[in-house]
Amino acid sequence: MKRRDFVKAVGAGAVLAGGLSACGGEQSATAGSKAQDRETFTWRMVTTWPENFPGLGTGAARLAERIEAMSGGRMRIRIYAAGELVPALEAFDAVSRGTVELGHGAAYYWKGKAPAAQFFAAVPFGMNAQEMNAWLYYGGGVELWKTVYEPFGILPAPAGNTGVQMGGWFNKEIASVADLEGLRMRIPGLGAEVLERAGGVPVTLPGGEIFTSLKTGVIDATEWVGPWNDLAFGLHQAAKYYYYPGWHEAGSTLECLINKTAFESLPEDLRAVVLAACQSINLDMLSEFTAKNPAALVALKDEHGVDVRPFPEAVMQKLHAISRDVTAELAASDPLAQEVHDSYFAFFKNVRAWHEISERAYYNMR
Amino acid sequence: MKRRDFVKAVGAGAVLAGGLSACGGEQSATAGSKAQDRETFTWRMVTTWPENFPGLGTGAARLAERIEAMSGGRMRIRIYAAGELVPALEAFDAVSRGTVELGHGAAYYWKGKAPAAQFFAAVPFGMNAQEMNAWLYYGGGVELWKTVYEPFGILPAPAGNTGVQMGGWFNKEIASVADLEGLRMRIPGLGAEVLERAGGVPVTLPGGEIFTSLKTGVIDATEWVGPWNDLAFGLHQAAKYYYYPGWHEAGSTLECLINKTAFESLPEDLRAVVLAACQSINLDMLSEFTAKNPAALVALKDEHGVDVRPFPEAVMQKLHAISRDVTAELAASDPLAQEVHDSYFAFFKNVRAWHEISERAYYNMR
Repeated sequence: MKRRDFVKAVGAGAVLAGGLSACGGEQSATAGSKAQDRETFTWRMVTTWPENFPGLGTGAARLAERIEAMSGGRMRIRIYAAGELVPALEAFDAVSRGTVELGHGAAYYWKGKAPAAQFFAAVPFGMNAQEMNAWLYYGGGVELWKTVYEPFGILPAPAGNTGVQMGGWFNKEIASVADLEGLRMRIPGLGAEVLERAGGVPVTLPGGEIFTSLKTGVIDATEWVGPWNDLAFGLHQAAKYYYYPGWHEAGSTLECLINKTAFESLPEDLRAVVLAACQSINLDMLSEFTAKNPAALVALKDEHGVDVRPFPEAVMQKLHAISRDVTAELAASDPLAQEVHDSYFAFFKNVRAWHEISERAYYNMR
Repeated sequence: MKRRDFVKAVGAGAVLAGGLSACGGEQSATAGSKAQDRETFTWRMVTTWPENFPGLGTGAARLAERIEAMSGGRMRIRIYAAGELVPALEAFDAVSRGTVELGHGAAYYWKGKAPAAQFFAAVPFGMNAQEMNAWLYYGGGVELWKTVYEPFGILPAPAGNTGVQMGGWFNKEIASVADLEGLRMRIPGLGAEVLERAGGVPVTLPGGEIFTSLKTGVIDATEWVGPWNDLAFGLHQAAKYYYYPGWHEAGSTLECLINKTAFESLPEDLRAVVLAACQSINLDMLSEFTAKNPAALVALKDEHGVDVRPFPEAVMQKLHAISRDVTAELAASDPLAQEVHDSYFAFFKNVRAWHEISERAYYNMR
């Protein structure tokens, strides 16, 4: 159904012509002494987020606005929420085919196309936002990411981060590893595989069904994002316990997907604009999450009396050990995934040792 | 001597004409249909850093390059290391007077002009990089910072961060609070005041004299930055112990100083370019520090056998308590400093509670 939906959503003509007519968007040169510099580009950006979704959706919109502002009117970007032009999980294909020039999403959504992609979004018990950015920009991460997306004609750029997320909302108390047995939890990606091996039952649910499923007991637990998004979603009205920390998403990186042919059709200054806009939004989004989660946490605790709890240490240790098996097996399944895995964990080992005596020591001593 | 040096360095004519002739730099319009859009700007950026100083100096240079690249040749920025055009600590004045359009430094250098400025660089036992950025971009920090620099005709923009620094290099063991008594340590800013109240003797030394002073026992200790810079500086050859964490600089924010008149002379797209470039460099620099400190730490420990130690908890508690007195007194000294102090600590209180269950809990459980 996926393919049919996609064709229906964008129109068969657009798909058939895709990759040629749409690459570089509608271009027109205004009169002037340097026609090439005044060429204008009308681009489209599809996202994997609901319209105005706090942080993720609004961050993507801000990225588009910023590119427009810096281009001095030479670039126009129309942004589409998930399902508006193509379904959320068709964003990668739409950019790959050149149906649209830009996408905003998270790399773990594309694991079916490229297993290695998951390392660029979130690894259970992996690197947090500051560490991910260091690896991506100065540890070879972005270069590997480009290699992974190369066959799809897509250029990736880090373009947002949530910071450490929450562990999720539970209607069953998690006092020991045994309590994970049979736990029906809505959790996607690598975290789902880890939970399953620990005895749980990961469930896939579209966003719109989560609240009711949790409220009616169809599921026992769900993860979502953090206090800011979770409060807006009303999850505190459907569950008893709010567990931390988000071991499965400790600094989820968001991405901007750029159609490579479209990118190469831009003059050099606009290429620099697009990439710098992505990097500025990467920090901007993390800053917004970091600023808005605290007040939401206060509201959840003080106004709604939410029971906020840490996962027991034994549970964390068990899930941590399983996580390493899961990532090692993922790496073994694909040579490129192995290469990315090795780069990721070599970097992680050293940055972790540094953060032991800097960020962590500081958190513990201040 | 400061004023005389300054005049000598930039030339009396430039100073006398400053604020008018230099604002907006040399402007020339190329022929074209939209002359205003093709106006070019030749700007100068003074910095408070030695030439090619790793992280800070190279980050400032990267900021200039990025603005140029995004402007498509409409902006040219010549960058000057400390002392090349004006002495390091005259950068603020040079931008204020319009002698140059841009500066790169750290706000605590300007405490003599605006006591409140220190809150925008580093507060002992204060916010780390992620928290500072959240406060600055989404907690009202940048707006307050603009207010503080407004009388000087300067627009500030966050433009870099070191992350949590190291506590410093010591030739005396710090086993208890009593060991701070009489400790002669090179340490600037608010950290110096805190050390002094704890019984220490803060010493001010130019960068070039630190190594020899430490080696010969003129001082007992010095703070610098972190493993990457400290290794390059050779400090491990002059001291026995390397203490952590950097309680006095837990996420030092660097700044871009923008002459307001010059900024307002830019067309809107170039204004957006300058500000987004600053935000992108803010993340870029932190990422470089985070990527390069780990390998330097390994080298210091494994190749040079450096004795890396945590400060004792009692010492941290004592310095923490004094730090709060120092910042409260700083606030009481100036109404604007009080306003900034209150905003800073109100934000810190909530973000700290959030990071207790997210970043900190994650560091401790992973």
